[in-house]
Amino acid sequence: MNRDDYLNRLRRIEGQVRGLQRMISDDEYCIDVLTQIASVSKALQGVGLGLLDEHLRHCVTDAVRNEGEAGEEKVHEAIQAVERLLRA
Amino acid sequence: MNRDDYLNRLRRIEGQVRGLQRMISDDEYCIDVLTQIASVSKALQGVGLGLLDEHLRHCVTDAVRNEGEAGEEKVHEAIQAVERLLRA
Amino acid sequence: MNRDDYLNRLRRIEGQVRGLQRMISDDEYCIDVLTQIASVSKALQGVGLGLLDEHLRHCVTDAVRNEGEAGEEKVHEAIQAVERLLRA
Amino acid sequence: MNRDDYLNRLRRIEGQVRGLQRMISDDEYCIDVLTQIASVSKALQGVGLGLLDEHLRHCVTDAVRNEGEAGEEKVHEAIQAVERLLRA
Repeated sequence: MNRDDYLNRLRRIEGQVRGLQRMISDDEYCIDVLTQIASVSKALQGVGLGLLDEHLRHCVTDAVRNEGEAGEEKVHEAIQAVERLLRA
Repeated sequence: MNRDDYLNRLRRIEGQVRGLQRMISDDEYCIDVLTQIASVSKALQGVGLGLLDEHLRHCVTDAVRNEGEAGEEKVHEAIQAVERLLRA
Repeated sequence: MNRDDYLNRLRRIEGQVRGLQRMISDDEYCIDVLTQIASVSKALQGVGLGLLDEHLRHCVTDAVRNEGEAGEEKVHEAIQAVERLLRA
Repeated sequence: MNRDDYLNRLRRIEGQVRGLQRMISDDEYCIDVLTQIASVSKALQGVGLGLLDEHLRHCVTDAVRNEGEAGEEKVHEAIQAVERLLRA
């Protein structure tokens, strides 16, 4: 588990969101703000993919090993999470 | 397994792509073509998510059950596929 | 205007969708099918972005030049099309 | 111009990112964290689309009106920003 790694990445993302506020306050050029928004989105998706990876490796494989059928439900739940990320 | 369902969905998508060609040939309004493109993309992503669901439920859970460590690799490979879908 | 270019790209996409059907029929490895789906999605989005570019350059700039206010509506309509692409 | 509206939305997003850190620290269920990430991404894309709308309505239409050719470049630049959002 690397909870600290996720916390660091999220703290950096928080800083980037504050940076976006500064850019808006300073009336920076729209396209530069949009580029920064794309970069924050990518960083957030990166955290999401990392969590999904761990989730599948731990929760899902545990469910498969110990509970059989429950593993299928866990997989389905994870797929729905992927769908929400894709549609976001 | 529901291979026929995927084939039907892909044949419908193929028809939609031909419809897009007709729209372009007929000089239809750009925004209508874009709306149709978004709908084809969504249908394609739907096929992708369905395949991912099956893959995780079958290949990955089999790998977990039978081979232990190999399950982790399968999960990682699936996550990379999700990443390619997200970035597409 | 490069209508032929769009038609060629869409014909190639149609061929890729037929390729996906073959991959499913041949029971090819899920992850390979997903990679191909991501590539078709990307090609489709490329067509969408190209059309959006032309639309903004032609329809929208014409509307701005000739009709003033109508330009704003055209822009708004284009943004909604972008939103549908993002959510697809 | 509604700069305050964007600042409020970004402050809310900043709060959501801090909320994500809390969820990770509290070891909340992965899928719930992923759902929250999808919601933050959506809010960010919303800010991006709003900025793009204003940008096209102001900067681009001004460029079209006053500078002719320069309008084309501005549109192209905006399309590239859309592409970065799509790929993010």
